[in-house]
Amino acid sequence: MQTNPIQLFDTASSTYTYILAGPGGDAAVIIDPVDHHCARDLAHLARLGLRLDYVIETHVHADHVTSAGRLHLLTGAHTAAPSGCNVPSAEVQLHDGDVIRFGAGETIAVLHTPGHTAGHLSYVWRGNVFTGDTLLIDGCGRTDFQGGSSAALYDSITNRLFALPDTTRVWPAHDYNGQAVSTIGWEKAHNARVVGRSREAFIALMDNLHLPPPKLIDIVVPANRNLGLPHGG
Amino acid sequence: MQTNPIQLFDTASSTYTYILAGPGGDAAVIIDPVDHHCARDLAHLARLGLRLDYVIETHVHADHVTSAGRLHLLTGAHTAAPSGCNVPSAEVQLHDGDVIRFGAGETIAVLHTPGHTAGHLSYVWRGNVFTGDTLLIDGCGRTDFQGGSSAALYDSITNRLFALPDTTRVWPAHDYNGQAVSTIGWEKAHNARVVGRSREAFIALMDNLHLPPPKLIDIVVPANRNLGLPHGG
Repeated sequence: MQTNPIQLFDTASSTYTYILAGPGGDAAVIIDPVDHHCARDLAHLARLGLRLDYVIETHVHADHVTSAGRLHLLTGAHTAAPSGCNVPSAEVQLHDGDVIRFGAGETIAVLHTPGHTAGHLSYVWRGNVFTGDTLLIDGCGRTDFQGGSSAALYDSITNRLFALPDTTRVWPAHDYNGQAVSTIGWEKAHNARVVGRSREAFIALMDNLHLPPPKLIDIVVPANRNLGLPHGG
Repeated sequence: MQTNPIQLFDTASSTYTYILAGPGGDAAVIIDPVDHHCARDLAHLARLGLRLDYVIETHVHADHVTSAGRLHLLTGAHTAAPSGCNVPSAEVQLHDGDVIRFGAGETIAVLHTPGHTAGHLSYVWRGNVFTGDTLLIDGCGRTDFQGGSSAALYDSITNRLFALPDTTRVWPAHDYNGQAVSTIGWEKAHNARVVGRSREAFIALMDNLHLPPPKLIDIVVPANRNLGLPHGG
């Protein structure tokens, strides 16, 4: 039965973090937590009476540092990251088709949706899909670093994500326009990047965006490969 | 069965607006919409495939203007406001104990929780309470205008809201510290304004806050009494 996650926002990087918990359940999963919101996220878990079972990343972020390692140390939650993202310290290496189980029968299905980064995963839970930087509301992630591929992104969006039921709620990793949630049906009909554009035209569009690199990418990506914890000497 | 609302934020006034919809349902209710987010809120309804049945106010706000009148004109949704708040243009005048019905069997129970303003109502839906400015996360609303009463606020919080089940999720009208949601159980145990404070001590605290008046109160309150629409000649 469909239920909404709790959606939390980081104004510095326009990143959404999600807390997932089944109705009446006491177990939770966090997707894509941000380092400087660790205390905020722990406060939400405490107030809601939730035990953190898993901290999951959609991909290795280039614009903010994860708090996954810290949340693991502070709560004992398992860390999980895409197997294709080179995060060796994550306890669980996730692959396409895996199922993450938590709480009383809660299941999260793992979908490989490469393109923004090569290893990027999306997660399906209770009629929701957490699309990371693959599919944004009326947009999509960039494809010009970390094994990005415009062709792969087009296929991930149109073949994999758009194959989900139209009513599936889309919760992205970012929004820059004050929007919170969409649906697969709406994105299939209206998404400005893919609707009415051939695979070739999409690739040409994405390959000519000429975006500046994320300011902190050279610091942030290595930090995220260690789940935001200092590297050992 | 518990499900979360969709929570939307206004950075200018730190106001939360809520969209409520039952799992799989196509009918929605909006609580406390903000004027300049009318397009954002309509976009969410369109993307989610939801028909707006009701626009509901917790009280007459002093810090922002509602879009209730505009949403009514644009969607046909019914407007509903507390009977004690002097909003004559609201189609439905709500009283303590009323039940608002929408969609396939969705019910919202109406609780009179005066104190921030005399007519203030809170709303209970699917294990959630929308507390407006009565109960905030680790705080409460001010009591120094619009028929506010520190004694009434104490009673509303400790007698009425704290009588709800501990697991009830608390969704306030504002948060100024980046927090999204709490529970009745947590607030009963930890709320900094009421826990460990007698009724008399709470009244003394609230009556000595000496807060500046909201900047736009003289414009905003009359506008909200007409649901944000221009007054007719």
